[in-house]
Amino acid sequence: MLNSGYPLPITFLSDFGWEDEYVGVVHGVIATLSPDCRVIDLNHRVPRGNIRAGALTLLRAIQYLPKGVVLAVVDPGVGSDRKALALSTDWGYLVGPDNGLLSPATAFLGGASAAYSIENPDVILPAVGRTFEGRDRFAPAAALLAAGEAQPEDLGPRVDAALLEPLLLPLSEVTDKGEVEGRAWWIDTYGNVQTNITPDDLGEAGIGPGEVVEVRVGLMSYRVQWVDTFADVETGRPLMNIDSAGLMALAVREGRADQHFTLAEDSSVVIARSD
Amino acid sequence: MLNSGYPLPITFLSDFGWEDEYVGVVHGVIATLSPDCRVIDLNHRVPRGNIRAGALTLLRAIQYLPKGVVLAVVDPGVGSDRKALALSTDWGYLVGPDNGLLSPATAFLGGASAAYSIENPDVILPAVGRTFEGRDRFAPAAALLAAGEAQPEDLGPRVDAALLEPLLLPLSEVTDKGEVEGRAWWIDTYGNVQTNITPDDLGEAGIGPGEVVEVRVGLMSYRVQWVDTFADVETGRPLMNIDSAGLMALAVREGRADQHFTLAEDSSVVIARSD
Amino acid sequence: MLNSGYPLPITFLSDFGWEDEYVGVVHGVIATLSPDCRVIDLNHRVPRGNIRAGALTLLRAIQYLPKGVVLAVVDPGVGSDRKALALSTDWGYLVGPDNGLLSPATAFLGGASAAYSIENPDVILPAVGRTFEGRDRFAPAAALLAAGEAQPEDLGPRVDAALLEPLLLPLSEVTDKGEVEGRAWWIDTYGNVQTNITPDDLGEAGIGPGEVVEVRVGLMSYRVQWVDTFADVETGRPLMNIDSAGLMALAVREGRADQHFTLAEDSSVVIARSD
Repeated sequence: MLNSGYPLPITFLSDFGWEDEYVGVVHGVIATLSPDCRVIDLNHRVPRGNIRAGALTLLRAIQYLPKGVVLAVVDPGVGSDRKALALSTDWGYLVGPDNGLLSPATAFLGGASAAYSIENPDVILPAVGRTFEGRDRFAPAAALLAAGEAQPEDLGPRVDAALLEPLLLPLSEVTDKGEVEGRAWWIDTYGNVQTNITPDDLGEAGIGPGEVVEVRVGLMSYRVQWVDTFADVETGRPLMNIDSAGLMALAVREGRADQHFTLAEDSSVVIARSD
Repeated sequence: MLNSGYPLPITFLSDFGWEDEYVGVVHGVIATLSPDCRVIDLNHRVPRGNIRAGALTLLRAIQYLPKGVVLAVVDPGVGSDRKALALSTDWGYLVGPDNGLLSPATAFLGGASAAYSIENPDVILPAVGRTFEGRDRFAPAAALLAAGEAQPEDLGPRVDAALLEPLLLPLSEVTDKGEVEGRAWWIDTYGNVQTNITPDDLGEAGIGPGEVVEVRVGLMSYRVQWVDTFADVETGRPLMNIDSAGLMALAVREGRADQHFTLAEDSSVVIARSD
Repeated sequence: MLNSGYPLPITFLSDFGWEDEYVGVVHGVIATLSPDCRVIDLNHRVPRGNIRAGALTLLRAIQYLPKGVVLAVVDPGVGSDRKALALSTDWGYLVGPDNGLLSPATAFLGGASAAYSIENPDVILPAVGRTFEGRDRFAPAAALLAAGEAQPEDLGPRVDAALLEPLLLPLSEVTDKGEVEGRAWWIDTYGNVQTNITPDDLGEAGIGPGEVVEVRVGLMSYRVQWVDTFADVETGRPLMNIDSAGLMALAVREGRADQHFTLAEDSSVVIARSD
């Protein structure tokens, strides 16, 4: 297959965790069907069944992944009648359940040019139970696409991409009072709090780098400086910066911002000029 | 080595955990000896020294792994005189300690056609201590087999496969009263409880899909329906289904069956008709 | 690139943990820039910001890694003016921050023949924030070196290898009284305590294998036998042995030596003849 570009790399995301062999068995299925296919484990510790967290992980990462196939399985509705999807995009293929998990990344990639429901029995592993579709349905579909041994239309009937399950994400807003209202979007393992507020939102509110802003969370109010990097504040002090995804984040140098600001995922955050 | 099939893929299972570099160092040894060899991490969080848990993991997974080499290290007797084995089967090679870890998977594969004790100093890494045989003895043996640079008989003397350490696994039983007696075999990270009871056992007891059965654990008794999938019951409700390994399992939709039924690994479970 | 040796394998070490997608995104960047490059995850659970623990991990492992590129990121000073380094050695390249992380392994490899500061904007990914240099600066540098698409001098200006940040590690000492003074150097996930004391230190103090020694920790004193392997003592009993890195270690068979001896990393340990 020299020069053909196949096998495409697969990037694999799930909420399977590392305690059991679920991740390893999916790797086994892929290696059996596409022996030379590279598989990148993006993250397998998405909180169990948290579609939004999985979708945001994929959205943050997609621009750094090698073009090819995404295999994403966060699927609390496994066994229900939700569809198993293979989406074609300009970037490559996305394989996963029709529950919104793939939607933000697909939109980021310019949308799906076609969508297929993985139903062809030839591409599904036979199994008595129907509880591990990551292994039996999604992994074979991804592996066959990666190997070039199947085209998306071989996997099952085409479905209307416009009817796929969306994922509603909260939008930030600049109010008439010149304040920016947003949400805590993601709290990483270090306790850093990413918001859905962009540097442009703050610019629209007349706030620029280096300024001290007011951050309001519920009834509490904090004064925090917009800095370049953690090293610009003392150890243990809070800060606001542009994080590695280009969004405004709250952090504490060598500490946890989620605790400092009493923030959980989806909490409201208001950023205003501090006069 | 085009078209030769070498290097064979290695599937690697251990109880090393991810906290330290033990898994990574074994990967380093394999990559040094067989640079193009694919290595699949099946699971490294087998409970420390739990041979049965490791053996069952391998047994559940083996049919999904690419043919080649299994490297399995759950070895509480490291440093004792237990043998270090390389087994030949129709499927490929299994490398690991002679403590029962490889036995169920080997039996599933039709048995070992030959067994060798890894003793040849040429295939063992020199080390002052003798505490990390995963790195010094098992990994080189697996890598050389995978690369095609050693045949099993190059690793050490042949031993009698009939004398290998067995692993006694509890069997399920259908009693004269038409009840099925079994055991909790595995509790996964979600709290799902796999038993050693098969759908055929239940059929023999006159129990079929869709029926409500009586599940007895110690002095407690529960009424549970045999359903296809989690989505067939309400959130928080218990169920019985055929799990992804084809065995009867107890589960709770978006909950933990081990807590609901007060079950631990190896607990007795009786399933009976509910009249 | 047949026979060229490229791409070189990359061994990747960090304190990113597995909870988020940080490790996976670095893999994505490498796979994008060097599609056929093998990447070995040495360990990503170095305690956050613990440069010494990361440096010792790399030092213990380096002799078992395939020659090529080390990518190491334990970088509490990210965003400060510490340099981002690429070091040339006889073994290959080491890429990471100039904070001592690479120093012990580099010394083990015979020192760096040249050092470069990764500053060339052509090899750095554009990003609004400057908080994820593992992704934006270190990963591309490592990937381009691995692919053979950059030589170290392409990454940025040469810097004086003699001026790199060292890492001071405590040395063991044999006293006039014939006692060996050392430190707890590493406590692994099993609670085994590696010291910085070598078998040669003990030989100099007149202590040999098989002897019962006195181990002093603070005001406490323990009598422990120097044995070959865990199996030489009863379950639950303490022992001293040469560990898999060739250093003297304290352990408890199927138990935790850190608790038995009340030892933490960097605690003082004295080993003396027990008369």
